[in-house]
Amino acid sequence: VKVLIVMGSESDLTVMQETAGLLEEFGIPFEMTIASAHRSPGRVSSVVAEAERKGVDVIVAGAGMSAHLAGVIASHAVVPVIGVPINASPLGGLDSLLSTVQMPPGVPVAAMAVGKAGAKNAAVLAAQIIGRKDPAVLRRLRAYKRKLARAVEEKARGLSTETKKTR
Amino acid sequence: VKVLIVMGSESDLTVMQETAGLLEEFGIPFEMTIASAHRSPGRVSSVVAEAERKGVDVIVAGAGMSAHLAGVIASHAVVPVIGVPINASPLGGLDSLLSTVQMPPGVPVAAMAVGKAGAKNAAVLAAQIIGRKDPAVLRRLRAYKRKLARAVEEKARGLSTETKKTR
Amino acid sequence: VKVLIVMGSESDLTVMQETAGLLEEFGIPFEMTIASAHRSPGRVSSVVAEAERKGVDVIVAGAGMSAHLAGVIASHAVVPVIGVPINASPLGGLDSLLSTVQMPPGVPVAAMAVGKAGAKNAAVLAAQIIGRKDPAVLRRLRAYKRKLARAVEEKARGLSTETKKTR
Amino acid sequence: VKVLIVMGSESDLTVMQETAGLLEEFGIPFEMTIASAHRSPGRVSSVVAEAERKGVDVIVAGAGMSAHLAGVIASHAVVPVIGVPINASPLGGLDSLLSTVQMPPGVPVAAMAVGKAGAKNAAVLAAQIIGRKDPAVLRRLRAYKRKLARAVEEKARGLSTETKKTR
Amino acid sequence: VKVLIVMGSESDLTVMQETAGLLEEFGIPFEMTIASAHRSPGRVSSVVAEAERKGVDVIVAGAGMSAHLAGVIASHAVVPVIGVPINASPLGGLDSLLSTVQMPPGVPVAAMAVGKAGAKNAAVLAAQIIGRKDPAVLRRLRAYKRKLARAVEEKARGLSTETKKTR
Amino acid sequence: VKVLIVMGSESDLTVMQETAGLLEEFGIPFEMTIASAHRSPGRVSSVVAEAERKGVDVIVAGAGMSAHLAGVIASHAVVPVIGVPINASPLGGLDSLLSTVQMPPGVPVAAMAVGKAGAKNAAVLAAQIIGRKDPAVLRRLRAYKRKLARAVEEKARGLSTETKKTR
Amino acid sequence: VKVLIVMGSESDLTVMQETAGLLEEFGIPFEMTIASAHRSPGRVSSVVAEAERKGVDVIVAGAGMSAHLAGVIASHAVVPVIGVPINASPLGGLDSLLSTVQMPPGVPVAAMAVGKAGAKNAAVLAAQIIGRKDPAVLRRLRAYKRKLARAVEEKARGLSTETKKTR
Amino acid sequence: VKVLIVMGSESDLTVMQETAGLLEEFGIPFEMTIASAHRSPGRVSSVVAEAERKGVDVIVAGAGMSAHLAGVIASHAVVPVIGVPINASPLGGLDSLLSTVQMPPGVPVAAMAVGKAGAKNAAVLAAQIIGRKDPAVLRRLRAYKRKLARAVEEKARGLSTETKKTR
Repeated sequence: VKVLIVMGSESDLTVMQETAGLLEEFGIPFEMTIASAHRSPGRVSSVVAEAERKGVDVIVAGAGMSAHLAGVIASHAVVPVIGVPINASPLGGLDSLLSTVQMPPGVPVAAMAVGKAGAKNAAVLAAQIIGRKDPAVLRRLRAYKRKLARAVEEKARGLSTETKKTR
Repeated sequence: VKVLIVMGSESDLTVMQETAGLLEEFGIPFEMTIASAHRSPGRVSSVVAEAERKGVDVIVAGAGMSAHLAGVIASHAVVPVIGVPINASPLGGLDSLLSTVQMPPGVPVAAMAVGKAGAKNAAVLAAQIIGRKDPAVLRRLRAYKRKLARAVEEKARGLSTETKKTR
Repeated sequence: VKVLIVMGSESDLTVMQETAGLLEEFGIPFEMTIASAHRSPGRVSSVVAEAERKGVDVIVAGAGMSAHLAGVIASHAVVPVIGVPINASPLGGLDSLLSTVQMPPGVPVAAMAVGKAGAKNAAVLAAQIIGRKDPAVLRRLRAYKRKLARAVEEKARGLSTETKKTR
Repeated sequence: VKVLIVMGSESDLTVMQETAGLLEEFGIPFEMTIASAHRSPGRVSSVVAEAERKGVDVIVAGAGMSAHLAGVIASHAVVPVIGVPINASPLGGLDSLLSTVQMPPGVPVAAMAVGKAGAKNAAVLAAQIIGRKDPAVLRRLRAYKRKLARAVEEKARGLSTETKKTR
Repeated sequence: VKVLIVMGSESDLTVMQETAGLLEEFGIPFEMTIASAHRSPGRVSSVVAEAERKGVDVIVAGAGMSAHLAGVIASHAVVPVIGVPINASPLGGLDSLLSTVQMPPGVPVAAMAVGKAGAKNAAVLAAQIIGRKDPAVLRRLRAYKRKLARAVEEKARGLSTETKKTR
Repeated sequence: VKVLIVMGSESDLTVMQETAGLLEEFGIPFEMTIASAHRSPGRVSSVVAEAERKGVDVIVAGAGMSAHLAGVIASHAVVPVIGVPINASPLGGLDSLLSTVQMPPGVPVAAMAVGKAGAKNAAVLAAQIIGRKDPAVLRRLRAYKRKLARAVEEKARGLSTETKKTR
Repeated sequence: VKVLIVMGSESDLTVMQETAGLLEEFGIPFEMTIASAHRSPGRVSSVVAEAERKGVDVIVAGAGMSAHLAGVIASHAVVPVIGVPINASPLGGLDSLLSTVQMPPGVPVAAMAVGKAGAKNAAVLAAQIIGRKDPAVLRRLRAYKRKLARAVEEKARGLSTETKKTR
Repeated sequence: VKVLIVMGSESDLTVMQETAGLLEEFGIPFEMTIASAHRSPGRVSSVVAEAERKGVDVIVAGAGMSAHLAGVIASHAVVPVIGVPINASPLGGLDSLLSTVQMPPGVPVAAMAVGKAGAKNAAVLAAQIIGRKDPAVLRRLRAYKRKLARAVEEKARGLSTETKKTR
């Protein structure tokens, strides 16, 4: 297991599956669990301790509202912690974004964008971190980057063809 | 000791002394300490456990930025937790306010206004909570409330006199 | 009656029933009524006076937009007042949140999160306040806290099982 | 007395004197007092009742933070109420602006800009309201409007001359 | 005609009909038209000039986005101008609210809440302004205020009865 | 005269001189004047009419608060209008930014950043627009772009040298 | 080809077609393509280089989230760049608006309103820029401006007729 | 060289020195340079290419306003990119924060808090990433974490002693 994905509540699963799906694509083994900074603080610290014992390289934490989960994990961990703010209140995710990113000096959380885009990017950043020591993952990242660029070019060609047809 | 005041950093002291000063005025014994949710998570849980053992009635927590302190204390405590957001970043305190107030269901933090006004009000709310079982504190609260109203009336008279003189 | 729930308008009922439901679970007797700080100011002060006469321990106030209800109640009361900001305008609840939480020095409102999460937490905070003098409520709070933690663990196990099945 | 100016605290005086100064320029008699929606709610309602008895045409209310003053006055009054949000917290006046302007249906507050600009405009709006029945005030308003336009033209000429000199 | 209602676009009609409906209830004659500060600036100034010639007492302006309509009308008028910010962009009405309320010194707009609540309150404020010289309108305003208070009391009774039945 | 710079108030001059200074550097003749959308609406339309008669290619408008100036100019003009939001209230320029940029369909304002950065960029954009028909200006723009890039490289060299010395 | 429309992703097409549609109405030849500042940076610079070689007069860029596309294009181009912020995250477009408009000194982007209104206005601004050297386009712009004003007047007449019928 | 620090402008140096200072403390070799996404795009891509050739493990990018620097670097790099938003406009850093963190899917930036706190944390996160393959750095991180916790405890003791003395 290289990456641990933790989410604050079961309802965050549809967002955090974006991380899981992309990690699978990169061939990076991961585990996924639920632990709430507020409802099960003991579980958070034991989950982190176990992850570090197993040699996990990155922890990804997704949470909404006063999203303390990533910060609380970072207070216990020396591995990099990636935070995914989830939009779970009428405030449009600004609450979880600021709770995640505005960490005080000494205890960083690598904050991603709010929601599914951020959850996907958590997987890419995790791969980039692991790629510093695993050449296979680095190769897959390079391929992924080329694929993204190619996809844009194909869409551009598609748009151009379609536009010609329409007129 | 009836109230424990916790702050995330020494720099929060000038704000949190407002709580201390007003608790003294209400004759409510308190203790004040520093514990960081992010830099000393172990200390936070031991400080809370000790406070509950001593029979503290309220915990007041002041913190800035991703202000997780009050929320993390609330995750450990069954006593009421009052959170004072402190303006400690260029974002004007919106970060600490949202981090403090937007707690998920099950684990409340009683959020106050950002800064010194909130720190003062934390003392008043603590007194109101203690006042539910301590008639002496309740009497002092009633006197404080009358004093506030009288002070407004005196200021109003002062303004009226001054205005007459000026013209 | 230990808790009075006041809401500014009938349309706030679906939110404030979260407070009522959880108070019932805690076995705390309560009453629920409607009073508007703006449309029926006289009713607000008489409702507060009557509640204090009856010995109510906590007042919970839910309101949207310029949510003055909790603040106006706090201006009349010496019991703790909990404010639940309700999202009732295109501004996403930021208006009711700031109106509720930014109380001036001397007159606190214990602000909760915007919407249903906040309404639930108002019941938990009320129970925590009452629990300072009622050991039975304190025991139920401790049980509730354990239940929250267990629920997280069960969800975590469920997720783990499901993940294994899927692969 | 045609206009009553109420402010929530003595510290609002430097802002609210802008209203007073401009009302004097319009020759509109006014009174100025202090009354806090939160610290002296009884005083607010008696001040409003007395103002309506005296036949006041407009009430101007200036307050900061959770600026409930104008709204609470509006709940008691049938005369137009003008609200001036005052910047009195780290949130830059957004709290007092939203508390003042987002009034629920049925009880309007005529909200002005945050701070001194708003305090000045409160005097102009009061004059416009009184001008509907007092032709002398209406004439002074027309003169004031011409003066504003002329001042712009003079500044424009000054700028043009200065620019020519500089080059 | 006592009140002129102007809206920036046909799509604002569903909001501004709230103003119209309540003015009818107050028995205040009004006219309603469309004029855009940006697409038909000439029409705006001629509409204002005609309204002032007809002796209109109040102009109500509703607009979305960069809501300049009320401000532009206020630049031409000496009658009170009431601005209703309309939520017409992804920014949730914050754009139209700030564009409407933050008027520079000398040219006030009486800003209402965003959307239908604000449109209703524009009618109440218009009635309050007209009520300064028309005792019949003042009487209807007093009756409206009592009706609002009574409606709250009836809803409160309904809630109380319903709660008893349910249990 | 190719560019007209208009500002809403004399106090905007220190910001708008950034536009003037850079236009001089590009060798583009301009005029600068004051006209307020709210205090001198007639002057705004005559200034625009005169500018279009003179064949001005771009109008730059700087204003604070409810910054309607650029929008009102755009309502009269068919030349491109560039808007510079100026920070002139406690809200940090968010009011003038949203008032400037959120123009309704049909009447664009080319919005720049808040303050001096935006004022400088107004000059660059004006030069880019004029550069479409004036090869000399286009050449100066290309030189300016190279100068910006070179300045970065020099600063980078300076930093590198300084860092070496320090260690 | 006079205008190049670039969008960051295929999902921006429904918004950016507003630009395309209106450019067609103005008779201005354009091309439309996809290029992502983040996923295909090389493509962005080659697309810009090609556009400048072809003599394109304006580039319009639409993007959401951290909308860097317009800024990155502006870093390569000396033609005017118009940025359309697209609402593509839970933050309501505030992210793309600020990313687009807050350009540092030296490299302007002409920012439009968020979404379809902004996309339409990008076409009008492009026409205004081209109109500085193409009298035919300028004529069509003048006609468009008259059409907008007439449409408002027709809507106003329709409203007036409908109101009369209803009563 | 393990870490490359890039800043958008010389004025960002006082903030970014926090990163440099802490990297030195961790014994991690780094280089620091200036490259602007907008004024020197070519330099950005060559700086990134050179850094990846040298085997740099992390790139830290600090920038203000429309902070595109980190995102543009991330578009070229496969190493992890850490973004430090810098408060460089009247908007309080909200512009640079949202520009940095809201990256679209596929191209992550690890966003830190606004300003010096974020710059410090960039060094810690860089050390955590390098620590995954360098046990010496991991040891120093563990020591740093203990030092942070001890510093809190010492401050707490200091506060306690001081409080006793004062009373």
